[in-house]
Amino acid sequence: MHVKKVRVVRDVRDANHTIARANREDFDRAGVTVVNFMSAPGAGKTSLLERALERLELELAVAVLEGDVQGSLDADRLARFHVEVAQINTGDGFGGECHLDANMVRSALDSLSLEETDLLVVENVGNLVCPAEFRIGEDFRVMATSVTEGEDKPLKYPLMYRAADLVLINKIDLLPHLDFDLERFLRHLDDVHPGVPRMLVSARTGEGVDAWCDWLLRRVRREQEAA
Amino acid sequence: MHVKKVRVVRDVRDANHTIARANREDFDRAGVTVVNFMSAPGAGKTSLLERALERLELELAVAVLEGDVQGSLDADRLARFHVEVAQINTGDGFGGECHLDANMVRSALDSLSLEETDLLVVENVGNLVCPAEFRIGEDFRVMATSVTEGEDKPLKYPLMYRAADLVLINKIDLLPHLDFDLERFLRHLDDVHPGVPRMLVSARTGEGVDAWCDWLLRRVRREQEAA
Repeated sequence: MHVKKVRVVRDVRDANHTIARANREDFDRAGVTVVNFMSAPGAGKTSLLERALERLELELAVAVLEGDVQGSLDADRLARFHVEVAQINTGDGFGGECHLDANMVRSALDSLSLEETDLLVVENVGNLVCPAEFRIGEDFRVMATSVTEGEDKPLKYPLMYRAADLVLINKIDLLPHLDFDLERFLRHLDDVHPGVPRMLVSARTGEGVDAWCDWLLRRVRREQEAA
Repeated sequence: MHVKKVRVVRDVRDANHTIARANREDFDRAGVTVVNFMSAPGAGKTSLLERALERLELELAVAVLEGDVQGSLDADRLARFHVEVAQINTGDGFGGECHLDANMVRSALDSLSLEETDLLVVENVGNLVCPAEFRIGEDFRVMATSVTEGEDKPLKYPLMYRAADLVLINKIDLLPHLDFDLERFLRHLDDVHPGVPRMLVSARTGEGVDAWCDWLLRRVRREQEAA
């Protein structure tokens, strides 16, 4: 008799994959483009989002899903925009889940008006490991990385850099004050994800934010044309 | 009939707790003081450790256990010191475990000469969530936080800041170039962990590193006297 080995780990992933696919179908049906926005803690996701919303809220119907272990600090920062914001707290899990999964996102969908939304940005929990392992039904994955984090991060957290469809290299206004070798960082980035689109940005000065907005707008328009 | 509910989550923690206690007994028997060193990716743990080792390697027998999802970049950086270094890679787990647990640490103990070691520093995976949830048998938990990460981090990742016996506030050489409100950060820190010892440091300039070394030396001497 041949006994088939089933690994529990695989089941967890399969379950997530199934729910992510259901999310994706709902997103497609509603005609909403979904971005899973990820980074280490403090890389500047919320600041980059604020900068982008200053322009995007005039051109698109945007909604934001904030993922945090606890609290709603980031959601509160977005209150000044004309965007729908929902908050997921992962702190009820095992001492605080370190990532969003498809089911958490699914549980939040009822609180958003997907039919009236062009772009949904899901701001994931700040973490360079697990968020990259859980699809949530997104169309694109954008990651922010800060030049203050050092050149070695793509080699140390390769799955995250490999998962990204776009890498925003943030805080470039600090480059003159750091021993950060940008060329070396870019080589490491290409080592783990050759040719991945990347943009040099600064949420503080606004540099590069227009290019990011253009990237988002193009994705939304393309999805809408394909529908 | 009364049916007792048993939560799986609790079992995972209990198992870790049991192994952590076994580690702790081995550490105590060998007379080694163990520090669990944690932070977000890129906060400067390895740089702070390098700075400290420049002095500590002359005064103590130090060993380092490096925890990374993959690679041995940090361990390689320590090759210039007279310290024993072992590497744990968590990448064989579920797509890469985002933290060290007691069993991973236990599996590495055979590769260290604990009996000849005064201080063992365990550099955890860069992550502000899960490492704080898993004791590894350490005597003390030190966390590094960078002023580039923003003032809100204690409120967003309270478990980590609450777990720390010492908070190293790193990269203070960048303060003149940031919109970082140190007073506000310290208030948030005290909100989640009132009065926790904290030190302002810069791995780049060396500022504050002596105070950190003194703190470590005092802990080691105290443990040795108590033995």
